[in-house]
Amino acid sequence: MQAIQPYLDSFLKYMQQHPFAAAPTELYEPIDYILNLGGKRMRPVMLLMAYQLFKEDYEKALPAAYAIEIFHNFSLVHDDIMDVAPLRRGKPTVHHKWDVNTGILSGDAMLVYAYEYLLKLEDTSKLHPLIKTFNKAAIEVCEGQQYDINFETRNDVRIDEYLKMIELKTSVLLAGGMKIGAIIADASEEEVEHVYQFGRNVGIAFQLQDDYLDSFGDPKKFGKKVGGDIVQNKKTYLILKALEIADTKTKAQLLEYMTTPTVEEQPKIEAVKNILEGLRIPELTFELKNAYQNTAFEHLSAIKVADERKQVLRDIADALLIREM
Amino acid sequence: MQAIQPYLDSFLKYMQQHPFAAAPTELYEPIDYILNLGGKRMRPVMLLMAYQLFKEDYEKALPAAYAIEIFHNFSLVHDDIMDVAPLRRGKPTVHHKWDVNTGILSGDAMLVYAYEYLLKLEDTSKLHPLIKTFNKAAIEVCEGQQYDINFETRNDVRIDEYLKMIELKTSVLLAGGMKIGAIIADASEEEVEHVYQFGRNVGIAFQLQDDYLDSFGDPKKFGKKVGGDIVQNKKTYLILKALEIADTKTKAQLLEYMTTPTVEEQPKIEAVKNILEGLRIPELTFELKNAYQNTAFEHLSAIKVADERKQVLRDIADALLIREM
Repeated sequence: MQAIQPYLDSFLKYMQQHPFAAAPTELYEPIDYILNLGGKRMRPVMLLMAYQLFKEDYEKALPAAYAIEIFHNFSLVHDDIMDVAPLRRGKPTVHHKWDVNTGILSGDAMLVYAYEYLLKLEDTSKLHPLIKTFNKAAIEVCEGQQYDINFETRNDVRIDEYLKMIELKTSVLLAGGMKIGAIIADASEEEVEHVYQFGRNVGIAFQLQDDYLDSFGDPKKFGKKVGGDIVQNKKTYLILKALEIADTKTKAQLLEYMTTPTVEEQPKIEAVKNILEGLRIPELTFELKNAYQNTAFEHLSAIKVADERKQVLRDIADALLIREM
Repeated sequence: MQAIQPYLDSFLKYMQQHPFAAAPTELYEPIDYILNLGGKRMRPVMLLMAYQLFKEDYEKALPAAYAIEIFHNFSLVHDDIMDVAPLRRGKPTVHHKWDVNTGILSGDAMLVYAYEYLLKLEDTSKLHPLIKTFNKAAIEVCEGQQYDINFETRNDVRIDEYLKMIELKTSVLLAGGMKIGAIIADASEEEVEHVYQFGRNVGIAFQLQDDYLDSFGDPKKFGKKVGGDIVQNKKTYLILKALEIADTKTKAQLLEYMTTPTVEEQPKIEAVKNILEGLRIPELTFELKNAYQNTAFEHLSAIKVADERKQVLRDIADALLIREM
């Protein structure tokens, strides 16, 4: 097994070596804060790994990796404001620790700094395709967030719309970042596209797994409280699939739960999970997740580089995506 | 007099020919709305004029002109949220017409689209210096907004700090846009710097004039309500200069007004204006504004192109900056 750690270490070292400006402190302290709350750093690490498929010296892609991580954190700061979320990774969100205006303005500055880091790449001749790729992902993330907001007040969300939304909101940034890594490493257009599709499919599979784990995960292993989506009446893939295949009576029961504010959490979680299990939703969700995962690996296989170069991407995908229910 | 109108017409036509995406409508309608609220389009027009100093075919710079206008409107949308402003150009602000979340997210998308328009420039070899210039202005605008927020709760703002704040918040975008126009037109480094300094000094002069007109303008000509800054206890150049030169008693009087929420508007406006006039603040403000204006014109003179090429910039600066009190 090729180690994931060197990529993460290299990225964290680069972050440390590139602090933000000092003044005005009210603008830059929240940026330091959110960037240092931790997280798996999955997007920058997988960007570096995409580069490493084609070339050894992945340090060259570090500025782009940082750009993607800064963008991701910008989107967390603004999303947390929109979702009125008090906590992020167990710590106060930026708008909660400071205020909404600080969250808006620090987020804006972060978005600009993401572009500033793309400019730090040595080879400036690829700036156009790189920023084009970055912009596409960035705009799609905004569109995904808008669809997510729209879906909250719609009772007729189709499964294809939901899958498109999670693709835009969560997987295009991973995919776009990996594409950027491949472009910097001079990969051919065809290879770049396989890298993108690998990232895109891993991202969607990861989000479907997240939907699954939120209701059916092992409380000891799952980071968040199991059943949170059910309590919040979130229209996840599990619920949308259940509404699609349930008979009239079961559908009515489920809709009743989903349109009523939660009073007693545990009985509701149990009742909804029973309905979902009766419809074999856990299995169906896992099957769909596996389909995306398999498609991802087909794209990885299609990339014409030595097999051992792909091992670290297989390793990280296996670490992110569980194989058993 | 060389006509300003062709530049404006050309820009407005380009805007019309480049509509935003259609879906999701909740994201793109607010963008259309704010971009079509009007305004002088001073920044994009002066970017085109900066290009035209060196080359005829200013249409080539239109994508960059639009990028600057989109960025400016992004900053208006987010600033209006932070300032809890209900109106912009006499119409409801985006967050007022829709909601705060819509304002945040549409603004974010606009910021990304600004970069997307910079990518549309024909000659991609200059992308690095262009985006570098754009980023510098964008980050400074964020920093300027932060200083402006900080100054609201500080009673010891120095005049040099205030001038720096208005430079960052309002003049660097005009200056940066003009610099971008000059870079696209292949101007030399020295000429680019003169163009930047022309824009920077015009911008500061314009803001000082705005401070002056807010209290001492002709109500028939001044677009906003005269005395608004005094009613809101805004620490403009007028007030800061007065606090600097007033004797102890007058200073105490002025501070009393400035730290008390306004109950009766007209008596307060009259009283503060009397204090300012007694200290010759209108004259001093106008003198400082003229100094920046003169510096701007010195930089314009120093640019080594035929004098008639500069006429349209003289015309627009004369239209923006009045010569008499």
